[in-house]
Amino acid sequence: MLSFNEYKDLINSHLTDLIADPGEEAAVLADAMRYSLEVGGKRLRPVLLLASCDFAGGEIMEALPYALSLEYIHTYSLIHDDLPAMDNDDLRRGKPTSHKVFGEAMAILAGDALLSTAAETVTGAPLAFAGIPVKMAAHIRAAHEIMSRAGATGMIAGQTADIRGESLEPDADLIRYIELHKTADLITAPVRAGLMLAEADDDMLSAFTTYALDIGVAFQILDDILDIEGDQALMGKTLGKDAEQGKCNYAYVHGIDAAKEELHRLTAEAKDALSPYGDKASFFMSLADSLEIRNH
Amino acid sequence: MLSFNEYKDLINSHLTDLIADPGEEAAVLADAMRYSLEVGGKRLRPVLLLASCDFAGGEIMEALPYALSLEYIHTYSLIHDDLPAMDNDDLRRGKPTSHKVFGEAMAILAGDALLSTAAETVTGAPLAFAGIPVKMAAHIRAAHEIMSRAGATGMIAGQTADIRGESLEPDADLIRYIELHKTADLITAPVRAGLMLAEADDDMLSAFTTYALDIGVAFQILDDILDIEGDQALMGKTLGKDAEQGKCNYAYVHGIDAAKEELHRLTAEAKDALSPYGDKASFFMSLADSLEIRNH
Repeated sequence: MLSFNEYKDLINSHLTDLIADPGEEAAVLADAMRYSLEVGGKRLRPVLLLASCDFAGGEIMEALPYALSLEYIHTYSLIHDDLPAMDNDDLRRGKPTSHKVFGEAMAILAGDALLSTAAETVTGAPLAFAGIPVKMAAHIRAAHEIMSRAGATGMIAGQTADIRGESLEPDADLIRYIELHKTADLITAPVRAGLMLAEADDDMLSAFTTYALDIGVAFQILDDILDIEGDQALMGKTLGKDAEQGKCNYAYVHGIDAAKEELHRLTAEAKDALSPYGDKASFFMSLADSLEIRNH
Repeated sequence: MLSFNEYKDLINSHLTDLIADPGEEAAVLADAMRYSLEVGGKRLRPVLLLASCDFAGGEIMEALPYALSLEYIHTYSLIHDDLPAMDNDDLRRGKPTSHKVFGEAMAILAGDALLSTAAETVTGAPLAFAGIPVKMAAHIRAAHEIMSRAGATGMIAGQTADIRGESLEPDADLIRYIELHKTADLITAPVRAGLMLAEADDDMLSAFTTYALDIGVAFQILDDILDIEGDQALMGKTLGKDAEQGKCNYAYVHGIDAAKEELHRLTAEAKDALSPYGDKASFFMSLADSLEIRNH
């Protein structure tokens, strides 16, 4: 296995490889797609996909298109989330958001195009294995996993609940729904898809699903904590917006101490799920620890 | 083969079957998706997919999820196109547009969710044929065809050029680019995908691609003509908007007589491409004729 930064470097060095040239008539579309991809990011989701595939004995270069697709989906969700009609954010990762640079219409289309490119990629990649039907089936399973968790009962359902939450009394069930779907689904998708590409067995799939859901929910709870006590310069985005917009935030509803406790509990549970794999799973154990103490 | 209306009835009776229930926390998302689907429509794209598959000897029930996916993609593109930041339309098919009913944020998410559901569907359907690898490959090819032509070098590139055209002098090349990508790509996708599902040969694929591109471009030219001399009540949308927004419109640039001539030439060329199939292709011949004389 490689280190987090080695996987991340691999992602970054191929990041815009799959952004096709639409010709001069629509060149601005590709410009807008690349802008939001290249503005930076932790690349957590694509790294998880490569690492999971690698862990289970798969080929990371086979997994690369799926990993990039995850980053395209994550990036489209941020572009649309930042729009004036949604969270109305001017800054993302310390840079002007897509609609501030390209205008609202192009930001909507750039988001649509990143999601479409992900779909185009994951329906194209399995065809490389038409001569090896078992592999082709594994690939299409991974494709379906990604699209399902990104979709109308996954990430987008989470975004919907997040917006709906603005006009409701904060509620523990609604918060859990938002954590699971808005955030954890798109962290679980790469882990499961990576394993599927490597044709991992059901036990491994089940253990890593628990791990991924736990770190996914933990990730959102930490985000909620950082919205209150984070460093705006480090975060590169406007903080304190949850209170201002009346968003469901775990730390507001349960208190910041309870939030930190839950974060710690989830991290421990995530690591525990991988204990059968011992030291071999150290990449994922360390990652869970590092996510718990991230400050941006 | 069935009649156009029989295919359409089949589509309409299954139209929302693939709209999943996200639970009460995000119920409004499914409501918004269903609203725009059920507001009506010609169902031209899904009918073309079923008919093409049927023509080439495929199973129409196997093709149904792909046909529905095409309508989901078409509908998402209309929802996003109608947004205030895009064409700012209050009416579509005589009914209030999505953002007028559900607000802008939900309209953005409903569009995203319809595109995602299409991607989820076309990556899920091939798995039913994991035991028949040749069929599975045909299905993935159809999935990829749909996603490519809907994507960043297809329909979305066309939308981008359409918006860009508002601030440019009307130009014949740009108009052709818009016709091909904004409109013809999403008419060609169902025809080719339907044939792919039926494992049609290359000659048939080639002839029908010419047919579909021709009727697709013709469809857009007629839309341009109707924007000038159509009946607003019949069309169910605001007309005369192209001139108002400075859009590239074939009839403005080339004149309305030249537009009608080109419409007729394309319709004849489309039918000519299918002449090797004689009467067997009468469904598609009649459809080309009926599209030429449609008044809404």
